[in-house]
Amino acid sequence: MEISALNKQFETDIQHKIDQKTKPVGSLGLLEDAALQLALIQSNKAGKLVTNISINNPAAVIFAGDHGISEEGVSIAPSCVTRQMVQNFITGGAAINCFCQANDIDFSVVDAGIIEPISEPASNLINKRLGAGTKNFVHQAAMTMAQVEQGLVYGDEVVTPIIENGCNLLILGEMGIGNTSSATAILARLTHSDVDLCVGTGTGITAEQLFKKKTLIDQALSRFNSDNPLTVLKEVGGFEIVEIIGAILAAARANITVLIDGFIVSVAALVACKINSNVRDYLLFAHESEEFGHQLLLCHLKAKPLLDVGLRLGEGTGAAIALPLLKSAAAFYNHMASFEDAGVTV
Amino acid sequence: MEISALNKQFETDIQHKIDQKTKPVGSLGLLEDAALQLALIQSNKAGKLVTNISINNPAAVIFAGDHGISEEGVSIAPSCVTRQMVQNFITGGAAINCFCQANDIDFSVVDAGIIEPISEPASNLINKRLGAGTKNFVHQAAMTMAQVEQGLVYGDEVVTPIIENGCNLLILGEMGIGNTSSATAILARLTHSDVDLCVGTGTGITAEQLFKKKTLIDQALSRFNSDNPLTVLKEVGGFEIVEIIGAILAAARANITVLIDGFIVSVAALVACKINSNVRDYLLFAHESEEFGHQLLLCHLKAKPLLDVGLRLGEGTGAAIALPLLKSAAAFYNHMASFEDAGVTV
Repeated sequence: MEISALNKQFETDIQHKIDQKTKPVGSLGLLEDAALQLALIQSNKAGKLVTNISINNPAAVIFAGDHGISEEGVSIAPSCVTRQMVQNFITGGAAINCFCQANDIDFSVVDAGIIEPISEPASNLINKRLGAGTKNFVHQAAMTMAQVEQGLVYGDEVVTPIIENGCNLLILGEMGIGNTSSATAILARLTHSDVDLCVGTGTGITAEQLFKKKTLIDQALSRFNSDNPLTVLKEVGGFEIVEIIGAILAAARANITVLIDGFIVSVAALVACKINSNVRDYLLFAHESEEFGHQLLLCHLKAKPLLDVGLRLGEGTGAAIALPLLKSAAAFYNHMASFEDAGVTV
Repeated sequence: MEISALNKQFETDIQHKIDQKTKPVGSLGLLEDAALQLALIQSNKAGKLVTNISINNPAAVIFAGDHGISEEGVSIAPSCVTRQMVQNFITGGAAINCFCQANDIDFSVVDAGIIEPISEPASNLINKRLGAGTKNFVHQAAMTMAQVEQGLVYGDEVVTPIIENGCNLLILGEMGIGNTSSATAILARLTHSDVDLCVGTGTGITAEQLFKKKTLIDQALSRFNSDNPLTVLKEVGGFEIVEIIGAILAAARANITVLIDGFIVSVAALVACKINSNVRDYLLFAHESEEFGHQLLLCHLKAKPLLDVGLRLGEGTGAAIALPLLKSAAAFYNHMASFEDAGVTV
């Protein structure tokens, strides 16, 4: 199935509806932009102007994978923490669990390829392993092209049943020690930017580690010249990143909204948009991360995120806490009186 | 009853609890600051460290009043719109109604002194009229000192029953054509700042109106020299602003949290803090308004608000849409696993 660009035929009507609400034009700021985009996406899917924005069964899916580069010591924690955090997700103890519960968001976690799989099955754990962590991409390709292609399919296979089950707003998150290195390398190559402009301290490495991280990413990028998105993923990608890209493409194909989280998921969004530029129409952006390269990335995506609260955790946490803002946007679009209804003098 | 400064004896324990959660230290940004302050306020009230932050019966109270200065044409709408919007609040059609409904917030509106009162009683309308609008403060005092004092009492009388009914998080909002002029004058005098640095376009006046607004505020401030908060209110205040100050003081006296909205309510917060500096401990700040002077005001209040989404509507809308962020802050504080609980390697 194709990913279609949003038909903009309803834009004028939606904007008019918003501008007739009992408030000065534009005075609800980014909430108006969010309402416009949600209404556009939903009108497009319905084939007619929707008078009510619906946010149905919002779901967060967290993809976890390990990264060969973590053996270089460029993260605050060793790879084994990825698996420990997957356990924490399963048992409900992580930040994303708390935020999903607080904001009525379904939750599941995907093993996209952590080093040692979780042996016990769990109702909220989905198994889509591409391997036992990627190779250390400083010296060799992170994965094979077959793994990239399989990962895109896996991402689709994870979220398609969720969408078919009625979810029309998808949140994607990630866990993977070392994955800011992978995301930084992808960002630098796909935007043809210096690594210096893309690299940050992740969840909190030292200046010395940051210098090493930058040097290693430069070294990795010097191994290959291509800026083809799939080749870049093969060379410096991560299993969870590839599957998130597959999930974003599947959501766009199904004409539903994806609320993009922070740095890693935004890089996945960038890749998805490079694969098919129509994807961008289906993306809303939750927050600006503290990660240094995120601002540059948001510029490339022409994105103005809803929140800027200093998060640097990942897991989809920024998107989960931003969801109520979309509910508020829907609420004013759906229920607020027009000047005419309320008898307010324009 | 006194307003006591927060006893900081629990701060170390609360910070330790937050830092032991399964996330890098500080990685939840402003949500951590909010959790710390909420836990401090509630521990202080309980007299012991609270292991759970509770947000009980959050309530929004919107105070409406008219302003004599609006006869000068410094607003986008005439005074009659204040009353029309109060009607809109009563029947549930305004933005704040939609946001309260979306976020489970109780709602009521107070007539603090609109020109023509609402004749029909309504279950969510509270009558605390100080008069039929203030005098035009360009030429004379906006109100009498007796009205200021009565307004502070009225604000207390409005919110005390709400607090006694179990609300421990209060949102205050305002409606009043012309009230950014009053708020700007108060801000300029209390912070000894040039009016130029404090004045903005409100909900959207022209550059010519903005110049006139600044000139008139300068003229008003030249009428008197005092920077005594009550005198400033008498000279250039508004009925809804005075009652909001009374409400903030009552909330602080009851040791509960106030989530401060945009420009007007932040000015009221500034006045309340000038009256009693201990008030500041009970205030959280919801959003940075588009109104020009708000950033300066937030600096004076040493406040870093949660949201910056381009709102310029008032009514308490920024606070109502920010409330879910406090619920998320409470959720991680209350339910997130510690490194020890989750067996995650520090």
